[in-house]
Amino acid sequence: MALISPSRRLRRTPFSDGVEAAGVKGYTVYNRMLLPTVFRSVEEDYHHLKNAVQIWDVSCERQVELRGPDAGKLMQMLTPRDLRGMLPGQCFYVPIVDETGGMLNDPVAVKLSEDRWWISIADSDLLFWVKGIANGWRLDVLVDEPDVSPLAVQGPHADDLMAAVFGDAIRDVRFFRFGMFDFQGREFAIARSGYSRQGGFEIYLEGSDLGMPLWNALMEAGKKWDVHAGCPNLIERIEGGLLSYGNDMTDDNTPHECGLGKFCNTHTAIGCIGRDALLRVAKEGPVQQIRAIAIDGDAVPGCDRAWPILADGVAVGQVTSAAWSPDFNTNVAIGMVRMTHWNEGTKLDVALPEETRTATVHEKFWL
Amino acid sequence: MALISPSRRLRRTPFSDGVEAAGVKGYTVYNRMLLPTVFRSVEEDYHHLKNAVQIWDVSCERQVELRGPDAGKLMQMLTPRDLRGMLPGQCFYVPIVDETGGMLNDPVAVKLSEDRWWISIADSDLLFWVKGIANGWRLDVLVDEPDVSPLAVQGPHADDLMAAVFGDAIRDVRFFRFGMFDFQGREFAIARSGYSRQGGFEIYLEGSDLGMPLWNALMEAGKKWDVHAGCPNLIERIEGGLLSYGNDMTDDNTPHECGLGKFCNTHTAIGCIGRDALLRVAKEGPVQQIRAIAIDGDAVPGCDRAWPILADGVAVGQVTSAAWSPDFNTNVAIGMVRMTHWNEGTKLDVALPEETRTATVHEKFWL
Repeated sequence: MALISPSRRLRRTPFSDGVEAAGVKGYTVYNRMLLPTVFRSVEEDYHHLKNAVQIWDVSCERQVELRGPDAGKLMQMLTPRDLRGMLPGQCFYVPIVDETGGMLNDPVAVKLSEDRWWISIADSDLLFWVKGIANGWRLDVLVDEPDVSPLAVQGPHADDLMAAVFGDAIRDVRFFRFGMFDFQGREFAIARSGYSRQGGFEIYLEGSDLGMPLWNALMEAGKKWDVHAGCPNLIERIEGGLLSYGNDMTDDNTPHECGLGKFCNTHTAIGCIGRDALLRVAKEGPVQQIRAIAIDGDAVPGCDRAWPILADGVAVGQVTSAAWSPDFNTNVAIGMVRMTHWNEGTKLDVALPEETRTATVHEKFWL
Repeated sequence: MALISPSRRLRRTPFSDGVEAAGVKGYTVYNRMLLPTVFRSVEEDYHHLKNAVQIWDVSCERQVELRGPDAGKLMQMLTPRDLRGMLPGQCFYVPIVDETGGMLNDPVAVKLSEDRWWISIADSDLLFWVKGIANGWRLDVLVDEPDVSPLAVQGPHADDLMAAVFGDAIRDVRFFRFGMFDFQGREFAIARSGYSRQGGFEIYLEGSDLGMPLWNALMEAGKKWDVHAGCPNLIERIEGGLLSYGNDMTDDNTPHECGLGKFCNTHTAIGCIGRDALLRVAKEGPVQQIRAIAIDGDAVPGCDRAWPILADGVAVGQVTSAAWSPDFNTNVAIGMVRMTHWNEGTKLDVALPEETRTATVHEKFWL
């Protein structure tokens, strides 16, 4: 690993002082913002996430806000998922595609009211696409990035910790729903969601001034559950099959290739961009798809580039995320595999930079 | 400085193997791609850049390609700079703004032919804005990111080194013009341009396979001029007043605030987005503007956040880039200052995280 040079362009967050005080050891850059990747060690963070509770600075999940009479119309143009039944207070995972069905982002849409939405984005400037579409189609909607910075609370004790700070009503928030909760006199949207399989919440901090008070309140209240600063954990997210835009999928891929076909209601999501292309894909099915892959041997190095997947020396896919899993005692990986070789149990070769490893298509993610 | 965690999402380049072999010590992330920031030390790299010649991996200057009958029309929609007189073979620095005149990027447009353009971008997904505009306005144009990775050769011996590899005709390429030159049987566009004040070229490598052969050929031929791997140098670019999108300007700023009013021909650039807002700004003039600022005292720390500029305790601007300059024996800085305090010689205070420093508005950049 090399050092990362500081600059204003790699934006700090309302929680950066807390992250630094907690001894962050590594970062990635996500939406031109600092995202911690490791505190104690990736393995130690992993065990702790599965057994206790962590506070994650995920401010880099920036929001694209749509506001105005055409907000709902625009939101449906952006995604092939049918949004007609969605109520205020709900969160929907929504693939966003261009006119050819190529994925531009895989965010979570948060419906605040009929004419106000947040799109909580993965790592690409979705703001620019949405602004361009709104401009070109002359929609009556304001589109911008508000001063909203999500803070996640993840782990088996997330409910206990959140209840200690926000009251027991937080326990009643259902999965991918949100409610409004008070903190020091201000109301924040808090959703039961997050980028792990351990359960938890995401607090949408509006306004940066309460960032550190919120961080400190959670850290203080969490002592009895051994709370620690944490971050999305590479091992846990691969085990759980949580895809990462830019790693496991890019604008080259359709949602169907990424196993997200179930979020594409191309027959009913009238007016969505990319509908023609995705109807064609839905009819024929994708020729390659995301698979869980177990890679044999010792711990693999960091997957800093796509590793070719070979069968009898012929390229049939690529691995894009991989890590050693202590709990499953194997290298867990996410890859895109051609249909000729995507069946469970298929033996493959994976070409790492320094060596080739044997691997197997796993039945499903480990969870 | 913290460590940067490797992932496929932070893309490697066709020259990464060369960069690593040259002993890169730090990176930033730019357009989700690795951009080296230091090889020996920022100061040693700086002196060498001014005296010898360097090879820079600036693959992160991704291209947005416009191709088709409406390419020229779209290009003029994107920028307030009047492009009517621009010929194939020319490069224009073009501010790109949204409908309110806020800057989305400050790229260089490369006119390959009447119906084919590259936009060589700064750090934001301009591709998404351009695709959205093309879609919404139903233009007959293909927009995508081609496999093109610029490699820069910068420094006083750039002409000599380039002539050794590409022949003496390269010496005749004029500033912000490009020509097509052969390398191992393929033709690449090579422009006299680059993100330093030391002179040099940018080679638009098309196709990644010739990346390392090109890198190695330049390194081999450059030995007699003490060639080294280098990168955009923080000190040199501040001395030279080269702005950095995301650092010194964001979508909050108009081109006029950034001193780029001369590139806004709002009376003649018919059809450009943001024209109404910029006509208003041109009439009234901006209320704040980029200035060169000399900060007193010892070397300042890395500018990882905007530093408030104060006058008698009142905020009148912010510093966004700063570094110690060995050649000018002061801290050189770039800041945005309100018109009440932007005159040459005005004394200011700059609030660094740990202390406040006195500073002066400098007449112009140091060059």
